[in-house]
Amino acid sequence: MRGFEAEDIVGIGIDATASTPLPVDAEGVPLSEQKDFAGDLNAMAWLWKDHTAYAEAQEITDAAARHRPEYLAKCGGIYSSEWFWSKALHCLRVAPQVIEAAASWVEQSDFLPAVLTGNRQPATWKRNVCAAGHKAMYHASWSLPDAGFLASIDPRLGELRRHKTYEKAYPSSQKAGGLSAHWAKSLGLAEGTPVAVGAIDAHLGAVGAGIKCGSLVKILGTSSCDMMIHPNTQPLADIPGLCGIVDGSIVPGFFGMEAGQSAVGDIFNWFVNHFDKGQRAHETLSAEAADLRPGQSGLLALDWNNGNRCVLVDPRLTGLLVGQTLHTSRAEVYRALIEGSAFGARVIIERFEEHGVPVEEVVNCGGIAEKSPLVMQIYADVTGRPMRLSRSAQTCALGAAIFGAVVAGAEAGGYETVTEAQAHMTGVKSKVYQPDPAAHATYDTLFALYRQLHDAFGTEHYQGSLANVMKDLLALRDQARGIGG
Amino acid sequence: MRGFEAEDIVGIGIDATASTPLPVDAEGVPLSEQKDFAGDLNAMAWLWKDHTAYAEAQEITDAAARHRPEYLAKCGGIYSSEWFWSKALHCLRVAPQVIEAAASWVEQSDFLPAVLTGNRQPATWKRNVCAAGHKAMYHASWSLPDAGFLASIDPRLGELRRHKTYEKAYPSSQKAGGLSAHWAKSLGLAEGTPVAVGAIDAHLGAVGAGIKCGSLVKILGTSSCDMMIHPNTQPLADIPGLCGIVDGSIVPGFFGMEAGQSAVGDIFNWFVNHFDKGQRAHETLSAEAADLRPGQSGLLALDWNNGNRCVLVDPRLTGLLVGQTLHTSRAEVYRALIEGSAFGARVIIERFEEHGVPVEEVVNCGGIAEKSPLVMQIYADVTGRPMRLSRSAQTCALGAAIFGAVVAGAEAGGYETVTEAQAHMTGVKSKVYQPDPAAHATYDTLFALYRQLHDAFGTEHYQGSLANVMKDLLALRDQARGIGG
Repeated sequence: MRGFEAEDIVGIGIDATASTPLPVDAEGVPLSEQKDFAGDLNAMAWLWKDHTAYAEAQEITDAAARHRPEYLAKCGGIYSSEWFWSKALHCLRVAPQVIEAAASWVEQSDFLPAVLTGNRQPATWKRNVCAAGHKAMYHASWSLPDAGFLASIDPRLGELRRHKTYEKAYPSSQKAGGLSAHWAKSLGLAEGTPVAVGAIDAHLGAVGAGIKCGSLVKILGTSSCDMMIHPNTQPLADIPGLCGIVDGSIVPGFFGMEAGQSAVGDIFNWFVNHFDKGQRAHETLSAEAADLRPGQSGLLALDWNNGNRCVLVDPRLTGLLVGQTLHTSRAEVYRALIEGSAFGARVIIERFEEHGVPVEEVVNCGGIAEKSPLVMQIYADVTGRPMRLSRSAQTCALGAAIFGAVVAGAEAGGYETVTEAQAHMTGVKSKVYQPDPAAHATYDTLFALYRQLHDAFGTEHYQGSLANVMKDLLALRDQARGIGG
Repeated sequence: MRGFEAEDIVGIGIDATASTPLPVDAEGVPLSEQKDFAGDLNAMAWLWKDHTAYAEAQEITDAAARHRPEYLAKCGGIYSSEWFWSKALHCLRVAPQVIEAAASWVEQSDFLPAVLTGNRQPATWKRNVCAAGHKAMYHASWSLPDAGFLASIDPRLGELRRHKTYEKAYPSSQKAGGLSAHWAKSLGLAEGTPVAVGAIDAHLGAVGAGIKCGSLVKILGTSSCDMMIHPNTQPLADIPGLCGIVDGSIVPGFFGMEAGQSAVGDIFNWFVNHFDKGQRAHETLSAEAADLRPGQSGLLALDWNNGNRCVLVDPRLTGLLVGQTLHTSRAEVYRALIEGSAFGARVIIERFEEHGVPVEEVVNCGGIAEKSPLVMQIYADVTGRPMRLSRSAQTCALGAAIFGAVVAGAEAGGYETVTEAQAHMTGVKSKVYQPDPAAHATYDTLFALYRQLHDAFGTEHYQGSLANVMKDLLALRDQARGIGG
């Protein structure tokens, strides 16, 4: 990183995880900072990957399916336990006094710009369309879900909607306000520096990775977020099983589409932390796993240790490993877990393409993309597509900076449009992971078995025996080891 | 162990693993001891748990199903890759020169009495009905399978049957001969001491554990052998999926019935050796696993890491683990593997009872029964039956000694019948593992899920989705943890 001068900072962008709502009081202060709620987990931020509200998500999905199918159509057909209303409803039930005491139920990505701009009136905060659209069923044509609908699920949820939420959401190309005197001093920046409306971290990561039409940007960390954009001037059908399609949620003028896997690196870390106590376990296991050929372990894993975010949208699913013998090694299991994750990624790519959104390139960013050549190569081999890497290792921050530049504007040293800023500020690395055709062919066979398990354990519509699965895996294993079947 | 005098030894019994065939020359010397075959694995004994001959087993099963269904009916409907003819056929294919050079293809349990009695003529060796009946499709009414049938599979197998096997098999209550001068001197025993016809180790273990009608004797070691007897004067239907029903194979006058699991302790050892490098891992994991309640882990395992011996009789099956989250611990997996093994054991018990053989008590012996109170308690809870332990820790040796006593006869200080010898020489320990009713109720629910996976992955006839499995496991887990669903 080069050094820079404080006066070079012409604008500020903000991103945060979502849905990560928190209750704030009438001055916009989190309830958890009040004496009455000190140490109360329910008064703190409800982190995005918290699935506690799975029963409430089911209630909301059921009610919407009956009365407001249009709400569901934009978020993949199922409302998630990780999202805004599920968490609000769960909080209403387990800690009603928290919602009672709150003046607003706010996304972290709206809270942070409000803090920086010194805005103490939650009712006037500019809420971001990215979190609103992807996590709270907001749509420009109907705003948030109507209070009557929410009240039909629980009257208190209707009240929350009426008095403690908002009507309009904005893209990050708009200013939330100017940097407050307090924060200007604290950060050593100019007071009034424009602060952009917030957004979800992953979505700005897509911007920082240079997302454009035909590019799938994958943020690979503990979980994954897979994003694409599509011009809002062209028709786009609803895509079942996606986390959402929201106009302007990634780049203004485009539908932003979000998908993802609820655990990626989390699964690899779980395995290492519980089943391998070695020093530098990821490095050692990766080196051993890299020496294995596709199919050679005879193993197949479902990547659902933290449920399935896409395309099944079901938190009540779990991991599965099949194919173990008395010789199965740690490195074989480690590789199978990576492969399972890659198969999950392929399901998402195929879902985009089946619904008229061609995936012409894949750009990866995030910790796993940076750190694991093995994961990247397996993703290339499983999907049969080159895996590119974002040039920046901090694409989310870069995406936020792009919006900081846009709210500053060209005259102040920024840019007029996101596309223009992306052209100057983003790029990919020269290293590209190319798919190996032979490996891809084997993975096609394994992927068919993955789909079989996926549908058998993840859907109601599967019919038939799974008697072929173990035998097919053994046949692939024998073939990979050069043993005649 | 008390000391004893050599003259107290009035008879010798022999048991060995089966099917463990080896090729011997015209003097009864193993081919592997000849210079031409030194170091040649194919000329050595083919160990019982070797599944290499799975393709040949399928051929034999298919041919018998078409032309000799009566052969299959006595061995559970499927001829195993672990057995006598599968191994002979595989050897004929991969190393025909071995069978070519051999004068006979002999079970280890027939070879050892021949050695001790100094009999150098394989054609005159008394082959035991236990191995012959359970592993080689021998039956008193037809002898071994006819040469014409075997030749239809492979002409060389017909030749082997004609010239290198035998016509009649005998129970262990008969003498194989007297101890040879050479061995008498070497062992310090009297020349001519009667040596009984051999038998399979596990079957004599059942005798040493005091097997009687209504008793299921389980030998629990790396794999399991589950045995029962039934009076040969009463009708007994064929039981599909058993390893065999053979008149006189355990106790003269009774049908001996054998079932078993192809891996028990082997699975626990595999897990510890590959996924837990700690000191005293079995002890530590057992202690932690004992603190878990049934259902609490949310996990379910199929115990097929070395295939399924009963009731599916399919070596081309593998292990499966489902229910993993990001918090699943080593001890939880360890317990799930034990539970999977217990569910496999319950399938066998139910198969006996469904076919008119009531299981009135279960007597366990072998290393696992001796060493793991956790395994015994889980078996009791899963089956809902008390688990008793054989008094002797060496039931196989004790069973052989019982036949030594019987071939010696009462006058020489032995006994006239097996039953009489058992009454004096066997018993159970006072410690009995009693089933806990609440644990059993939970395991009933888990067992239904096990059966669902068992049938879905192990049979062609399963129909339907498995969409309930992960959700039911999570619901049981939440219940066990006291979390409201």
